[in-house]
Amino acid sequence: MSIIRALETSDIRFPTSTSLDGSDAMNLDPDYSAAYVRVLTDADDGLEGHGFVFTIGRGNDVQVAAIEALCSHLVGRNAEDLLAHMGATWRELVWDSQLRWLGPEKGVMHMAIGAVVNALWDLKAKRAGLPLWQLLGRMSPEEIVELVDFRYLTDAITPDEALDILRAAVPGRAEREAELLATGYPAYTTTPGWLGYSDEKLVRLAKEAVADGYGMIKLKVGGSVDDDIRRMRLAREAVGPDIRIGTDANQRWGVDEAIEWMSRLAEFDVAWIEEPTSPDDLLAHAAIARGVAPIPVATGEHMSNRIMFKQFLQADALQVLQIDASRVAGVNENVAILLLAAKFGVPVCPHAGGVGLCEAVQHLSMFDYVAVTATHDDRVIEFVDHLHEHFVTPVDMRNGCYIAPTAPGNGMEMHAASRAEYAFGT
Amino acid sequence: MSIIRALETSDIRFPTSTSLDGSDAMNLDPDYSAAYVRVLTDADDGLEGHGFVFTIGRGNDVQVAAIEALCSHLVGRNAEDLLAHMGATWRELVWDSQLRWLGPEKGVMHMAIGAVVNALWDLKAKRAGLPLWQLLGRMSPEEIVELVDFRYLTDAITPDEALDILRAAVPGRAEREAELLATGYPAYTTTPGWLGYSDEKLVRLAKEAVADGYGMIKLKVGGSVDDDIRRMRLAREAVGPDIRIGTDANQRWGVDEAIEWMSRLAEFDVAWIEEPTSPDDLLAHAAIARGVAPIPVATGEHMSNRIMFKQFLQADALQVLQIDASRVAGVNENVAILLLAAKFGVPVCPHAGGVGLCEAVQHLSMFDYVAVTATHDDRVIEFVDHLHEHFVTPVDMRNGCYIAPTAPGNGMEMHAASRAEYAFGT
Repeated sequence: MSIIRALETSDIRFPTSTSLDGSDAMNLDPDYSAAYVRVLTDADDGLEGHGFVFTIGRGNDVQVAAIEALCSHLVGRNAEDLLAHMGATWRELVWDSQLRWLGPEKGVMHMAIGAVVNALWDLKAKRAGLPLWQLLGRMSPEEIVELVDFRYLTDAITPDEALDILRAAVPGRAEREAELLATGYPAYTTTPGWLGYSDEKLVRLAKEAVADGYGMIKLKVGGSVDDDIRRMRLAREAVGPDIRIGTDANQRWGVDEAIEWMSRLAEFDVAWIEEPTSPDDLLAHAAIARGVAPIPVATGEHMSNRIMFKQFLQADALQVLQIDASRVAGVNENVAILLLAAKFGVPVCPHAGGVGLCEAVQHLSMFDYVAVTATHDDRVIEFVDHLHEHFVTPVDMRNGCYIAPTAPGNGMEMHAASRAEYAFGT
Repeated sequence: MSIIRALETSDIRFPTSTSLDGSDAMNLDPDYSAAYVRVLTDADDGLEGHGFVFTIGRGNDVQVAAIEALCSHLVGRNAEDLLAHMGATWRELVWDSQLRWLGPEKGVMHMAIGAVVNALWDLKAKRAGLPLWQLLGRMSPEEIVELVDFRYLTDAITPDEALDILRAAVPGRAEREAELLATGYPAYTTTPGWLGYSDEKLVRLAKEAVADGYGMIKLKVGGSVDDDIRRMRLAREAVGPDIRIGTDANQRWGVDEAIEWMSRLAEFDVAWIEEPTSPDDLLAHAAIARGVAPIPVATGEHMSNRIMFKQFLQADALQVLQIDASRVAGVNENVAILLLAAKFGVPVCPHAGGVGLCEAVQHLSMFDYVAVTATHDDRVIEFVDHLHEHFVTPVDMRNGCYIAPTAPGNGMEMHAASRAEYAFGT
């Protein structure tokens, strides 16, 4: 038996605003940051569980404070018990009746639970000697369903329906694991498309993306429609007709503005329009989806919980679902969202980039491929090429694909030296 | 000119869990708390702006940390400028591109902005020598519209439509002010109905409520249907057929369960069912509203922002709208929500109770009566009779009505002695 002896937190911030990496129509000068947590036990194995919430600078200290508020739930507890019953562990954290008032299930407190849940999964995977995607992908359908809290979901998916989906994907699991290890999971890249980049840099990076094997790139839009038309034309000329080009407005518009703006960009063969308006506004997304069809609407990176995802699916308010590794309450909630997407037949194309989000979210798409949908048709994981060097197991990109990681854990562990160097305020 | 020299915060917690005041089906043992802020200037007038976020205990420290994260926006700034342009001040806080990542516009960070915005309004009202409801109720329609951020709202209400609503209510403002000062705004009381109270206490308090002049009481439900039937029968027998009885499930149910449960309680003539399910789930609320009709669905105390309220109105997912003084980003956002409710013709019956929520939210309903809807038909403000003694201007209840306050400010100022006595961890 081992005991959780501490949750150690750090406030880590990279000064990315100086280069305008990550700049878009709403996020003009992000400093990519992580509210980071290590779960430490008294076991002799030396294993630690790592997790974090990605933020873009100011407020990262508030996010750290929220993670620390969870210490009283976990410190002193039996680690084997918590890790053996991750469904119950998740419920205990999310349903703390006093902390719940601070959401419920949204914002700073919910993301803090996500960091801790992800760190526990990291520890569980390291103890099992498996990368998270394999640990999850080898669980039985019954074990997977037990991870999910179906409260507020059963009007869209029941535990029995989830079991049916998972059981149908049991045949072929091993072959799909082997494929992911050999050739990986398809990616697209946002590296060329930040709003703060010059036209020359956009064109150069777009051509590099094609040369590197990517079948899709994405451009930030929503600053000025004339600029967007010029940049889309340059990008389309740079990549040719066969590469998909997505667009991302980062919540910039209302309904009418979104429809009008996208009518101006439609000639460039747009793969999707991402976050056209407030991430809370499913009725507006549904109206926009009708107005911009056949361009699909993509969203999810700011969606606060499984209940919002459920409604977007019920209302046909998104046609591409974008999970994020650190926005919701960790692995368990993302499993719920993957099951919802499978039920509705909507492709999941995760949000990544930031700090370590690529390293983390690939595990979820690979689990989805192995054990849930058994397909990656129409599915791509976002890739942005910066800050990977700070991670113990950086992503391995080959020919526009994420090659499946083999190191045990969830991918979120940052080098100790990087954590020390970028510790904020020290 | 005066300068804001500090935001001083305190973590204040009342040990209410010992008496089960405030106990319901989801909140078993709340410790009513306030993440409290004082806005201090270098002016000679000695005036301070007070505001807070109400929480129920654990996590109040996280909420305090979030308020402190706003210091850098306000400390050192010209107070007159900020107070003269409260619409611009609100936008600056809510649209901080880095802090926005922590929501956007929801949870701990958004509520922190609410506390600071409310504190600024308190200071503005004290400087004007007026209670907040009168300060707001005497602003011109154009000034009121300027307070509201219409981004994401114009598919439901435009600035011009808001102006029309406000202009229509200009005639009679003075008469309605006089009425509020003389006879007040109708209230209902939740004091009898906490789930942790004995049957005897329920009956005694229900009878007292009628004797005190209340036309409506409310009972917490959702623990056990048999208990709820017994308690509703006792309450109905205690108050007689002419007093309205509302019910409140505090998010306990899914769609089918809510409809089934309420079918068992319908015989007791239910005034409304409050928070039947997740506060994020407008599609479920709409389905429940159809299923329990003609019982109205009431919700709002946990609704995170104006965009969610807008959608609930668009989807006919609520028939009674419950604003809260400290859940959204302060006075400005509640003005937006009142205008939305007026546009859709839905009555606003505020959530109150907690710590100081009655003192605060009465100002918003009174402003609504004076300057927005010009009616309080079908409208009641919640009242719970505890912790009022800690406030400098406690509510003045007479014959089941809130008598309009005359003291300058927003009502949120707690006695210094109470703040010191209930400071947490000291």
